[in-house]
Amino acid sequence: MEHRLKRLDRKTIYEGTVVDFCKDKVQLPDGVIQEWDFIHHKKGGGACVVPVLPDGKILMIRQYRPAIGEETIELPAGARDSENEDGIVTAKRELLEETGYTAEKWTFLSRIRTAVAWCDEFTDVYLAEDLVKKAEQDLDEAEEIKITEIELKDALRDIYSGKQQDAKTVAGLLAYAVKIIQ
Amino acid sequence: MEHRLKRLDRKTIYEGTVVDFCKDKVQLPDGVIQEWDFIHHKKGGGACVVPVLPDGKILMIRQYRPAIGEETIELPAGARDSENEDGIVTAKRELLEETGYTAEKWTFLSRIRTAVAWCDEFTDVYLAEDLVKKAEQDLDEAEEIKITEIELKDALRDIYSGKQQDAKTVAGLLAYAVKIIQ
Repeated sequence: MEHRLKRLDRKTIYEGTVVDFCKDKVQLPDGVIQEWDFIHHKKGGGACVVPVLPDGKILMIRQYRPAIGEETIELPAGARDSENEDGIVTAKRELLEETGYTAEKWTFLSRIRTAVAWCDEFTDVYLAEDLVKKAEQDLDEAEEIKITEIELKDALRDIYSGKQQDAKTVAGLLAYAVKIIQ
Repeated sequence: MEHRLKRLDRKTIYEGTVVDFCKDKVQLPDGVIQEWDFIHHKKGGGACVVPVLPDGKILMIRQYRPAIGEETIELPAGARDSENEDGIVTAKRELLEETGYTAEKWTFLSRIRTAVAWCDEFTDVYLAEDLVKKAEQDLDEAEEIKITEIELKDALRDIYSGKQQDAKTVAGLLAYAVKIIQ
């Protein structure tokens, strides 16, 4: 598709720890020039895992999220260690660190971009099967998380009721559900 | 769950047009105090629609996204007009403006939070059925979009191949798919 909407320039306005605030100079189809907000994720993104236990339950983590002031139940996930780290490497590390499990079988489910209108962050979502308990959790000092096991049907109910709101968790659980229901 | 991880303070560092850059003062479980990035969405968020045509195809929009420098195919969606606007109001307006369609039947599918670790934006996702063509597109000067109709099976294939990456679109299509497959 030809497009007259163009990004002419990008400037970093404020450098953060996890994300940077940038201003894009954008030319609209009618020629008008505007400044649009853009958030650059310093690691590009991360990975998320749908870990399925032998009995079919999903391994999830419960934690408090200061950003939104709420406790959440999320799929294991985390940011890349470096900007070029492959998603599967991030996924394996985060699963082991957050739950103590490794998996024999890994399947790519989807890549999700956080907010295509104003951000470049993405998350690679993987299905992890044939789980093996290898170790205890290995958490850094900012993490205070509890492992929990949830039936897929309960997790789906929480999505449709609006209780489960974490985008990567919603996408991951649904991607797994469609795969096994089909 | 009791948590020792606490947010002690939040300061706006840079005010943008769509989002603000904030710094949270966070106390870690071990007592150490850190500053964490936080992105506040000025409208809180928006809504997204899965519009299903009588023949089962999904109505989607193709557009160029300057933020990521790519053309995307997304579900119709947009931000709230005001901070207290109900999601269904946003959803109905965006469907009409972006596609010219209204719908007789609306069903809440899910609410997704963009990035719970560092952002407060959310998107309410609705299923729209019994579509009626009411008008032509009514786009603002920044929008240059084309309507496209996609079979659900093709949309799902694009999710699992990693081609369809827009988080709200991935979540919305999968939420619809699970609903009709079950």
